[in-house]
Amino acid sequence: MQLLKDKIIQEGTILSETVLKVDHFLNHQIDVPLMLKVGEEFANRFNNEPITKILTIESSGIAPSVMTGLELNVPVIFARKRKSLTLTENLYSAKVYSYTKQQTNEISVSKQLLNKDDHVLVLDDFLANGEAARGLIEIVNQAEASLAGIGIVIEKSFQQGGNDLRAQGIRVESLVRIKSLEDGKVIFN
Amino acid sequence: MQLLKDKIIQEGTILSETVLKVDHFLNHQIDVPLMLKVGEEFANRFNNEPITKILTIESSGIAPSVMTGLELNVPVIFARKRKSLTLTENLYSAKVYSYTKQQTNEISVSKQLLNKDDHVLVLDDFLANGEAARGLIEIVNQAEASLAGIGIVIEKSFQQGGNDLRAQGIRVESLVRIKSLEDGKVIFN
Repeated sequence: MQLLKDKIIQEGTILSETVLKVDHFLNHQIDVPLMLKVGEEFANRFNNEPITKILTIESSGIAPSVMTGLELNVPVIFARKRKSLTLTENLYSAKVYSYTKQQTNEISVSKQLLNKDDHVLVLDDFLANGEAARGLIEIVNQAEASLAGIGIVIEKSFQQGGNDLRAQGIRVESLVRIKSLEDGKVIFN
Repeated sequence: MQLLKDKIIQEGTILSETVLKVDHFLNHQIDVPLMLKVGEEFANRFNNEPITKILTIESSGIAPSVMTGLELNVPVIFARKRKSLTLTENLYSAKVYSYTKQQTNEISVSKQLLNKDDHVLVLDDFLANGEAARGLIEIVNQAEASLAGIGIVIEKSFQQGGNDLRAQGIRVESLVRIKSLEDGKVIFN
């Protein structure tokens, strides 16, 4: 997706050989017209699937998911990272380790929201080692729902998450794939 | 907003005299067409203000804010509740106590994203004691930006947050105001 590549070049900041900061348009400030385009693109790519729900994880997955939900006309569920007092039982849950935050979160989804009749599109902002995606897939499996595939805004293809998932036969659609962040430059696949 | 009242009656669950669970359409699963209407309503109400940015707080404020940003054609910033490794310095920050989660979070916004030229609409899903709203206003003040007002999806008007803010001369627009959750019934203002 050229628009997204341009935005990454213009407004992304390379913090290290593995970390790209995109907080000007994706995961702290949200460029809303760009998110609308992101939603249209995911909807186009998964147009052939009878998707009933989009499943993402708080917080950065919510904006692209809502825009995709707008296009596909399906509800969005965001998995919760911490249990709150109003959401304590009847949960599907999975453990997810975040390399960026160096902590393990238990993510959870109310059992009332997903079941075996659902065909689920999993969406997230980044794919690196694939921890979050695997956690979300585990929740889809616990619900005995079917998985339409995984949509990712930015895949860091120099990390193994995407290839591991594809090797399992899972459809992974990344709008942008980054091959390298070395030498202070973003190189796309 | 009648559509929202209907939804609360149909799909909300009263957990106690102070807690209304709306995780089927607002803060766990998102009803996307409803959020679009919510965004249109906020945009209409603040139509007379030269808003440059919407400021909310992760996670439940993001969906209504993105839809409002779509209507007003302005970026959305969501304040972060925890510091991440990619966002560690040059922050505006404020402490916010969550009665629901019984913990204090430091919320923060990158100084690069807000400044004195901004006219900010603060949005959130719920207003009860007003802790989150006050934290967001503190960030607007630290940025020396101006405040257009506060938009709230559901105000629990039996708690004092909304009235406290209005008493300070702040414009608070709540799409729905709930007077009571007593006896297992939702009573609107």
